[in-house]
Amino acid sequence: MATEIDTSFIPDMPQGPLCEYRKCAKFDWKRLRLIFEEENTLRIKYKVWKILEADPLFSKPKTALSSDEQKRLAAMQMNKMAHLNLIPPELSQRGYLEKTMYLMSINEALHTVCPSLSVKIALGVGLFNNALHAMGTERHKKYYDAAWNREIVTCMAITEVAHGSNTKSIRTTAKYDPQTKEFIIHTPDFEAAKCWIGNLGKTATVALTFANLYTPDGVDHGLHGFLVPVRNPQTLQAYPGVLVGDIGDKIGLNGIDNGFVMFSNYRIPRENLLNRTGDVTPDGAYESVFSEPGKILGAALESFSAGRIGIMQEAANTLSNAAVIAVRYAAIRKQFGQEKNSPEIPIINYQLHQWRIFPYLAAACVLKVSVLELTKTYLKIVEKSQADSNGFELLTQIVSEVHALISSSKPLITWTARDAIQEAREACGGHGYLKASNLGELRNNHDPSCTYEGDNNVLGQQTSNWLLRQWNNDHLESPIGTANFLLQRNEILNSNFDRLVQHCPVDSIEFVIKCYEWLICWLLNKTSTKMKVATSNGEHRFDARNNAQVYGARDLWRAYAELFALRSFIKRCNQPDVTPELKSVLNLLYFVYGYWCIDKHLTTFYQGNFASGSQFADLIREKLLAKCSLLKDSSVSIADSIAPPDFALNSVIARADGLLYQNLQNEFMTHPGAFERPSWWKEVLIPPTKSKL
Amino acid sequence: MATEIDTSFIPDMPQGPLCEYRKCAKFDWKRLRLIFEEENTLRIKYKVWKILEADPLFSKPKTALSSDEQKRLAAMQMNKMAHLNLIPPELSQRGYLEKTMYLMSINEALHTVCPSLSVKIALGVGLFNNALHAMGTERHKKYYDAAWNREIVTCMAITEVAHGSNTKSIRTTAKYDPQTKEFIIHTPDFEAAKCWIGNLGKTATVALTFANLYTPDGVDHGLHGFLVPVRNPQTLQAYPGVLVGDIGDKIGLNGIDNGFVMFSNYRIPRENLLNRTGDVTPDGAYESVFSEPGKILGAALESFSAGRIGIMQEAANTLSNAAVIAVRYAAIRKQFGQEKNSPEIPIINYQLHQWRIFPYLAAACVLKVSVLELTKTYLKIVEKSQADSNGFELLTQIVSEVHALISSSKPLITWTARDAIQEAREACGGHGYLKASNLGELRNNHDPSCTYEGDNNVLGQQTSNWLLRQWNNDHLESPIGTANFLLQRNEILNSNFDRLVQHCPVDSIEFVIKCYEWLICWLLNKTSTKMKVATSNGEHRFDARNNAQVYGARDLWRAYAELFALRSFIKRCNQPDVTPELKSVLNLLYFVYGYWCIDKHLTTFYQGNFASGSQFADLIREKLLAKCSLLKDSSVSIADSIAPPDFALNSVIARADGLLYQNLQNEFMTHPGAFERPSWWKEVLIPPTKSKL
Repeated sequence: MATEIDTSFIPDMPQGPLCEYRKCAKFDWKRLRLIFEEENTLRIKYKVWKILEADPLFSKPKTALSSDEQKRLAAMQMNKMAHLNLIPPELSQRGYLEKTMYLMSINEALHTVCPSLSVKIALGVGLFNNALHAMGTERHKKYYDAAWNREIVTCMAITEVAHGSNTKSIRTTAKYDPQTKEFIIHTPDFEAAKCWIGNLGKTATVALTFANLYTPDGVDHGLHGFLVPVRNPQTLQAYPGVLVGDIGDKIGLNGIDNGFVMFSNYRIPRENLLNRTGDVTPDGAYESVFSEPGKILGAALESFSAGRIGIMQEAANTLSNAAVIAVRYAAIRKQFGQEKNSPEIPIINYQLHQWRIFPYLAAACVLKVSVLELTKTYLKIVEKSQADSNGFELLTQIVSEVHALISSSKPLITWTARDAIQEAREACGGHGYLKASNLGELRNNHDPSCTYEGDNNVLGQQTSNWLLRQWNNDHLESPIGTANFLLQRNEILNSNFDRLVQHCPVDSIEFVIKCYEWLICWLLNKTSTKMKVATSNGEHRFDARNNAQVYGARDLWRAYAELFALRSFIKRCNQPDVTPELKSVLNLLYFVYGYWCIDKHLTTFYQGNFASGSQFADLIREKLLAKCSLLKDSSVSIADSIAPPDFALNSVIARADGLLYQNLQNEFMTHPGAFERPSWWKEVLIPPTKSKL
Repeated sequence: MATEIDTSFIPDMPQGPLCEYRKCAKFDWKRLRLIFEEENTLRIKYKVWKILEADPLFSKPKTALSSDEQKRLAAMQMNKMAHLNLIPPELSQRGYLEKTMYLMSINEALHTVCPSLSVKIALGVGLFNNALHAMGTERHKKYYDAAWNREIVTCMAITEVAHGSNTKSIRTTAKYDPQTKEFIIHTPDFEAAKCWIGNLGKTATVALTFANLYTPDGVDHGLHGFLVPVRNPQTLQAYPGVLVGDIGDKIGLNGIDNGFVMFSNYRIPRENLLNRTGDVTPDGAYESVFSEPGKILGAALESFSAGRIGIMQEAANTLSNAAVIAVRYAAIRKQFGQEKNSPEIPIINYQLHQWRIFPYLAAACVLKVSVLELTKTYLKIVEKSQADSNGFELLTQIVSEVHALISSSKPLITWTARDAIQEAREACGGHGYLKASNLGELRNNHDPSCTYEGDNNVLGQQTSNWLLRQWNNDHLESPIGTANFLLQRNEILNSNFDRLVQHCPVDSIEFVIKCYEWLICWLLNKTSTKMKVATSNGEHRFDARNNAQVYGARDLWRAYAELFALRSFIKRCNQPDVTPELKSVLNLLYFVYGYWCIDKHLTTFYQGNFASGSQFADLIREKLLAKCSLLKDSSVSIADSIAPPDFALNSVIARADGLLYQNLQNEFMTHPGAFERPSWWKEVLIPPTKSKL
């Protein structure tokens, strides 16, 4: 089977100084690439990159654009999307999983090149239509189709100025007026203004707005979704009663027009209520379509998981790009040597440097694989729930487990990418501080993913809550199997390093997993006990949970996400397309990531008496450094196997040709105005009477 | 004594929601402010801030400026400096220490408001004149005076495209031509182009250039400094033979015109050699002025320490600003509550949030104090060396110890500031991602300080090398006393947690120090042994040292810097102006920082058998959380005591009035074009035939 794999669609790497390293790799990097990504995905991505590279609208401007210019560009790119024919017409006939994978692959390619555009589409088409699908009915289909065909620019208005994570405290109201058969949307004050809404600042004409529905009898029926026209699509002027504006510059992603809006008793037709879960009759009576609207709303919000999956895919690519930049630069950059006159050494040879950047290279590979695994698991479940007339109801357990996986993996991956970018920035020294290194853009654009679509610190608690339920309940509910090992909790908690190594050597795949199983059980036991003691002492559950996060629940959900990533990677390594050469480098990557993660938890292992004395820490750390050293010869080819084309990576210090200084020279000498006297030279001249030199 | 302190020059805090917290503090925040900064410094800073705030040239632009506009602004501000009369004329008559402290205070105030300008002055005046002072002679005084009086714009051209940290490999040459009595400055290729040189891109007319001096006999006399005219000061046009340009956009600090230059057999007069350490006679003979030019060059480079001190002061302020923003925001921002309908809780109440941000508040306070201590120690030594005709020679030991302190403290402080900014960014959620939060600017401008003036990972090795020498030498050479405890190495290494707590409770000041003494001795022993084993196995010293960095020398120098910071803080707390109320809050800050730092080293404590089992980690972590909780009521007032005025902090989410949402509203609604239809609206309109909604 292994020989049948077609890698010919993957472009070759150019000749250049990096080939010296490429020769050392004992595997085919294109084959490795197909371990980390599916062939279909990769074909779509290369196709999209090719189309974008050929279109001047998507070429990187040579000088920084103003925020206004960035917004204009992103809006024009968004309109252009409909004409690029990225989506084959027949795709709409395909099944949910295939269709979604296709769209996700396009997004991945798009995000690397123009992250603002990717987010604009995700918000205005993806999230909007997911929400419409979950909450709307047949009468809203025209909006769904219009968004899909890019005939309207939409946005999702949930967050308010004073409420982000806590959506339950949203204060915008929608009061039904039976006289006119309209809802009156109203913002009580600025703190309740919808805020940060992507696409709303300048361009959206329709806002899917969350507001508390009041019937004429004064009863508050809780949060509902409404389709609210905010601007005239012919003029882009706001409608009377809608005070809508742009919130101004952000740290990054300035191509997105994030906006705020205040509604002043603004009337919309009754039919604009998304009425899948509850409706209001023309006379003003509220009708629940299901008996548990809260649960249904949960299901509707669950549709945001697609957003989190997208963020994870993007973050895994961002992480990859940072690692690629760091590795390629380190392979070429030389500094210092044994003696004053001995040849200088590429910095990739220094142990310290390897330890700084290789774990991120390994993390990129492992996390790419685990995101793919998670994506497919998620999509299969959604597909199944759609086929099943009972919807999510029968799948509650699976949905809960997937939610736990997503809620911990999204923080893990976004934080790992964040740290990788920073380490790469510093590891590339001054040249890493050049805008043209692209590390600043990566950082500024990636940054919000740590706090949006669920603030990492808050979102992770969804996972620890689920794990604690599994720990404390009589029956384990882990249909996907990620928590099945909890059934062996007693045996696991009785294990320790000395006993473990007797049947499981430190460099066995199993060893890392076993360490994690102990870690998670111990943290569960500790956290659960702490909360029980607190509540039995009269502490409110809310407070008990809050006081069990630091050094408890927070470490717990992170460890759980790491274990899932490692297990997903092992699963992938055991597929039949993995040749022995590939297996060997995949194993290295597994251990570098695994030991590196364990290293960060070492204190807990000692605290919980899993180990004492120096041996455990010594071994983990020595092995990590040894594996890093072994990785050196393969690192450039591994980087190739996760790198986008130069056009998309867009880093002058990390082109595939490895011509670092030639590329820098070209960059320095050709950027606009490089050698020109500034237009303002006369304004800063020091008068000759003053300057005597 | 305590009652005589005048705090009236410190402006009061405005009324507003934060006053609820301010009322809870049991100390006078203005008195606390005078613990962290000297009265003179503070008076100068407030004066500078007042002057800058009143001058429109220094007001923050409402929209982002292009890089070109930023450069223009910084150049105009630089010229304006001479007219702001920030420096009293009589200052030049004062002693070195007083004068330098004055200039440093101005720089601190300036840096908070316009970091690019601060760096431009530091490079063009401070570093340039320091180098001239160390390497030049009487004949170069006119350049010194001209730079001081802002009559010329200068720069320091050391770094080359392919060589940053490793200055010994610089390749630019200066060949003496006895026929014309000129040096011929030449750049062999682009890799040897001077690069990243601040002020050189657009404005500098003179570059203090480092090049290898060759006499006509072909002998290479090593690196020397040359004053090289690069542009005509009347026209700002480059001279023939000088290819000088701007390197383009950076991630931040775009007000600085970083440039590159290639010299093509470019001739300068013989007198432009900085000839304090060596000279070339008109006939072309090299004359060493001292017998050990290498050592003198070291002394000259030592003058860069002033730059590192400046970076530390700036980084301590950046760290403070990040902590202030996070604390003020957390005090006002509410999210979630015990039950759906119970009042929402300010996020500063959550243990997790306290643990995320309070350690940075404590770090800001502790590190501000230690930077001040280090600054004064350094300045006293320089002053002494200037008075002493033997220069640095007699002070070698002190200079080495100060160098060890600076080389570890600069990385510690810049990294702590880096992490504080990121944590603050995330802790302020979406609003922290607004450009107007200022956290993005802080991050992008602070970023290079981790790699310039000595890359942190490389610079720190200077400290570990010094410590290892102290460990291995027969005689301890620690005149400042930072390493005196190494004399008790045996006793220290025999101590452990169980024995220590018997006479030294965990919440004693002493406990933290004793833990650190053990940590440093253990790391020294481990690292030293590792290197000895490696070299005795035939490994080259260079490699042995490189392979002893991770989990060894790197932890070592960091721990040493932390210990110095903690000791400096204790020293400050014991001064007579510290009242019991102040002492109480200072103690809290000490423990929060101390436990937090120890927490990061816990693995080493276990690995080295200082502790085993859960007790040690449990205690450190419980105490840390308990102290954080105690800090809550004081945190807003502590933030006040390290905060610059609103004008300088420049964060819409952290104004001293605490009117978070009113300030946000004002920001959203008044920024240019907030409610305007974009000028490009027609370009992005979807044709009505297409849009049916």
